[in-house]
Amino acid sequence: MTADLVARAASLVAQVRERRPRVHCITNTVVQELTANVLLAAGAIPSMTTSPEEIGYFVSGADVLLVNLGTLDKERRDAIEIALEVARDDGIPWVLDPVLIERSEPRAELARLIAMKEPRVVRGNAAEFGALTNAEPTPEALDKFALDHITVAACTGAVDLVTSGAKRVQIENGHPYMAQVTGIGCAESALVAAMVAVEDDEFIAATAGLLLMGIAGETAAEIAQGPGSFAVALIDALAKIAPGTIAAKARVR
Amino acid sequence: MTADLVARAASLVAQVRERRPRVHCITNTVVQELTANVLLAAGAIPSMTTSPEEIGYFVSGADVLLVNLGTLDKERRDAIEIALEVARDDGIPWVLDPVLIERSEPRAELARLIAMKEPRVVRGNAAEFGALTNAEPTPEALDKFALDHITVAACTGAVDLVTSGAKRVQIENGHPYMAQVTGIGCAESALVAAMVAVEDDEFIAATAGLLLMGIAGETAAEIAQGPGSFAVALIDALAKIAPGTIAAKARVR
Amino acid sequence: MTADLVARAASLVAQVRERRPRVHCITNTVVQELTANVLLAAGAIPSMTTSPEEIGYFVSGADVLLVNLGTLDKERRDAIEIALEVARDDGIPWVLDPVLIERSEPRAELARLIAMKEPRVVRGNAAEFGALTNAEPTPEALDKFALDHITVAACTGAVDLVTSGAKRVQIENGHPYMAQVTGIGCAESALVAAMVAVEDDEFIAATAGLLLMGIAGETAAEIAQGPGSFAVALIDALAKIAPGTIAAKARVR
Repeated sequence: MTADLVARAASLVAQVRERRPRVHCITNTVVQELTANVLLAAGAIPSMTTSPEEIGYFVSGADVLLVNLGTLDKERRDAIEIALEVARDDGIPWVLDPVLIERSEPRAELARLIAMKEPRVVRGNAAEFGALTNAEPTPEALDKFALDHITVAACTGAVDLVTSGAKRVQIENGHPYMAQVTGIGCAESALVAAMVAVEDDEFIAATAGLLLMGIAGETAAEIAQGPGSFAVALIDALAKIAPGTIAAKARVR
Repeated sequence: MTADLVARAASLVAQVRERRPRVHCITNTVVQELTANVLLAAGAIPSMTTSPEEIGYFVSGADVLLVNLGTLDKERRDAIEIALEVARDDGIPWVLDPVLIERSEPRAELARLIAMKEPRVVRGNAAEFGALTNAEPTPEALDKFALDHITVAACTGAVDLVTSGAKRVQIENGHPYMAQVTGIGCAESALVAAMVAVEDDEFIAATAGLLLMGIAGETAAEIAQGPGSFAVALIDALAKIAPGTIAAKARVR
Repeated sequence: MTADLVARAASLVAQVRERRPRVHCITNTVVQELTANVLLAAGAIPSMTTSPEEIGYFVSGADVLLVNLGTLDKERRDAIEIALEVARDDGIPWVLDPVLIERSEPRAELARLIAMKEPRVVRGNAAEFGALTNAEPTPEALDKFALDHITVAACTGAVDLVTSGAKRVQIENGHPYMAQVTGIGCAESALVAAMVAVEDDEFIAATAGLLLMGIAGETAAEIAQGPGSFAVALIDALAKIAPGTIAAKARVR
């Protein structure tokens, strides 16, 4: 299974560059610039408006929607509600990033509520999935979450786990520098969203987004002198990495 | 004409460094940091507050105002209204960047409305000028827009066009990397605003801002390994480019 | 005195890396990303939420709070009020950065008001301390401010001054590039906050934060080609600078 999965995931990297999907991001103010630059480097077209007055226009013109719960405020809450309605009505897929929900109970409640609205993928870390599922985020708990919510859970960390409930893989790519730069996880969710825009199978799409970020991270780490130069080299790597490199370097089990 | 225009534009780069104009930017949250760093590198002093409660104080203490319509929300709408009143009352020139108005009709409406309040320069791309003018953004349509609005239209892309209606030039400087980094166009509008602060002839000021960004972009591209390192090298180039280099490398027709 | 002060300040750099304090930042949208990356590079864990609905949860889970008054709006005003109440009730120390208060009288009023709520350190530049104290920011005026407010004043510039009223030192580390990158002062306040989280003596903590930024800045300037590459190298330097280097390079009088 994994050889075929990796091959299909690698081909998505080329498809994003060719089809240039529009990714509308409701995301936190800390990571907007990095997220936009990561998407541009991967070949996608980002937009970032979060005002309730305009969000509907941007979502209906997008190929996919990312809902990241960072710096959640009233404006973002209202925008998320409208955006999810427009996405449902227009058949636009969406991805959820429940960022830092373990730090704020009202944010966790919102995450649990909208996780029931069929995001194609939920991308978070172990602490975030723990808060989302009210349980230890074991592989089995993530399988159950994915099945119950008709979604794919992508839990990233030193080793990433992707599960649809029916299928589950581990991805061992990446580098410790990725945890030392703010917003890498958030940007990874945006890459997953870009993949979802060009691939109906969200298990493959999530795997592709994580592989792209992880392997670009490994490439960047080879020349980085620290987390600052790593972040710069990561954008360069995302822009030029070949699908063949993804296929060759993927460590998927 | 163009030799004199280029010489005067190049001299503005030195004047900004010497006079250090204060540029108050109402701009979107995605590009605030890049815009501030571009202005600082060019020798100007940026400020970025957008709250209606404080915007009047910042505008009245500034030498020029930039109104960029990205991430437009209620706070920014209110701030823009106050800022334009203060700018008019205090005789502070302003520059409009109608960013992404083709994606949101209410934003386009606001852009059309405030474009009638005599911005010194409107800087956008072809899609944005198309939405602003409700027409194909041909050179003739941009001439008419500039004449009708008593402004200068600066339409950037692979080739830039600057027109006052009476005069029109094309600028061929720049590099494809500039479209792969978020906010370069927004920051270019801020550079134009800095030039407007030190030069009453807005046709020269707009040309100077576009030349500075385009030629710094060419310089940065010579050492960049991708869009990430390009963005870093662009700031370095803006900080050290000599007016003589602007004059020597300008491709204006 | 200074040899012991420098030794203790240098040891705090190691303590932050070991204890990884959580620093919650109410800060302006321009510098959120840089501030987060500076804190991560130093070993601290940043969070940045500013909504009144969530701020209490984040502050009560943090080890220290930073209140930076940039891009001050109604949401931030409300959040600051709640955050300071939670910090007082939970015994969480806080640091004030009165950024650009000389440009906006309502902002200066808020700064004067909350400066009376016992921030452990106030970090600003000369213009900001001038507005805060309604006086020329002489060393004696800063001494008096610190005594009157039971705080430490850290006034940064070409030469930094740190005073508790009872003790006062000058720090000569740093580099002119630091004034050419947006948000370095704001991020320096965040470093001071991280030090306050691991050290009860705020005079030592403030000195440590300023020494870390100043000496990392000197290290970064050695390889920088301009302010763009300086900002990148600064993050790299913060991540790897040894406490022994701080002690060796400190220029404290």
